[in-house]
Amino acid sequence: MQAPIHRYRTGEGLTQANDELAVEEPLEIRIAGKAVSVTMRTPGEGDHRALHDTELAAGFLLSEGIIASAADLDRIEPCGRTQADVNVLNVFLTPGCTFDPQSLIRHVFASSSCGLCGKATLDAIHQQFPPVYAQAPVTTDVLLGLTHTLAKHQATFDRTGGLHAAGLFDRTGKLLVTREDIGRHNAVDKVIGHALQAGWATDDHILWVSGRASFEIMQKALAARIPLITAVSAPSSLAVEFAHDSGQTLIGFLREGRMNIYAGAQRVTTPQN
Amino acid sequence: MQAPIHRYRTGEGLTQANDELAVEEPLEIRIAGKAVSVTMRTPGEGDHRALHDTELAAGFLLSEGIIASAADLDRIEPCGRTQADVNVLNVFLTPGCTFDPQSLIRHVFASSSCGLCGKATLDAIHQQFPPVYAQAPVTTDVLLGLTHTLAKHQATFDRTGGLHAAGLFDRTGKLLVTREDIGRHNAVDKVIGHALQAGWATDDHILWVSGRASFEIMQKALAARIPLITAVSAPSSLAVEFAHDSGQTLIGFLREGRMNIYAGAQRVTTPQN
Repeated sequence: MQAPIHRYRTGEGLTQANDELAVEEPLEIRIAGKAVSVTMRTPGEGDHRALHDTELAAGFLLSEGIIASAADLDRIEPCGRTQADVNVLNVFLTPGCTFDPQSLIRHVFASSSCGLCGKATLDAIHQQFPPVYAQAPVTTDVLLGLTHTLAKHQATFDRTGGLHAAGLFDRTGKLLVTREDIGRHNAVDKVIGHALQAGWATDDHILWVSGRASFEIMQKALAARIPLITAVSAPSSLAVEFAHDSGQTLIGFLREGRMNIYAGAQRVTTPQN
Repeated sequence: MQAPIHRYRTGEGLTQANDELAVEEPLEIRIAGKAVSVTMRTPGEGDHRALHDTELAAGFLLSEGIIASAADLDRIEPCGRTQADVNVLNVFLTPGCTFDPQSLIRHVFASSSCGLCGKATLDAIHQQFPPVYAQAPVTTDVLLGLTHTLAKHQATFDRTGGLHAAGLFDRTGKLLVTREDIGRHNAVDKVIGHALQAGWATDDHILWVSGRASFEIMQKALAARIPLITAVSAPSSLAVEFAHDSGQTLIGFLREGRMNIYAGAQRVTTPQN
């Protein structure tokens, strides 16, 4: 999926460009009409969409112990023909295979009131968490320094190469708190929770995350009223859409001398302007 | 957390070593005695354990809209004093703050029969999915070729830098199927689902994943009876423990001319032996 971005390169300044985004969309899996899983996934392109979604559902059913072999699976069908329904699959087990929801090792689902399967969910989230309006200007120089500051800090702690990090900075680039976790969303929750308990106003702060920026990270930042989110790696399509809708600034591929601005570029100023 | 491993380096062959693992443990968050979330997280070290867990819970509550500010939160306490209870937190909201479980944007929880909070859960999983016993010997040469094969393939597809990949190989290093997704677990589900629907016997195959190997990846592989799991980056502590318990071979940091073997080294042979 193509998206218009602002690109910054040292020596070149800010330029407009297009970037290819990894698509992130929810998929709901139902058995006998009941949702047993909602996962954020990347659909296959074109004809591969239905195929890969079916594979994903079949693999999930096997992983969770709902089916033991292909013989337990009658068929998997899309729920309907509307756009939203493309993201809902109905699973039909063979008559002999009974499904006891209690037997699930883990339940991962969205309540029926939510759906999480389309525009309606994003609207519901935005109703709960209104957009951020803070001007919160930040310079490219400050942004370019963040990853170095955090990487230096993380190197001390992460001797495993297996941990994600999140950090909260003020707009002068001062690191206020950093936390690590095997899950990126946990590292973000820790940072946000720390700020909450410390009584900090984070509404003109910068959230930095190692790796990628997903929809979930953006939502957590919005709940904490953080207007500026930077990631070392790529954002997803839904993260970018969410940033636009919520007035957030989203920066990806924040590395030595470069960054891509996916949303809210008005907050980013270069030393020249 | 330190773990004994076998290390392979081209020119040095296999040697014994110690490696530092990122700790992965479940944390259950309860409100009014009801579990509202189970997440796999990395606890803080020593005195930081309680602090970071409390931050994680506070950040989760804010992100999910359960609390709107610090004023809604009375206190967060560990559930008890036993080892398992260290991983359970009780949240007490202030009297004025009502909690409606239906209002949760997403529910992510484990059923009470499961717990997912300790050894009992791993035992339950192993009861459902017995260990793999296949000898399935594989040479270091084959293993060293996997990442190159898959990376070459992924480069064609991933123009975003934001996708994970999973691949299924036979023991000669032949790539059978590969899938990509913004979620690593989804990519694995797709590959496993494909194999299931194609009727393949995967019980002497190799699962390759980009990035890290978590507990969840190991469980999915075990459900598909796959004995050999390789990851480009680090495994978690729980992934390694799970591999030992389930008879799986787990290889991490599989890169140019090198790899670390975290479990099941008996399946790996060098050209010399």
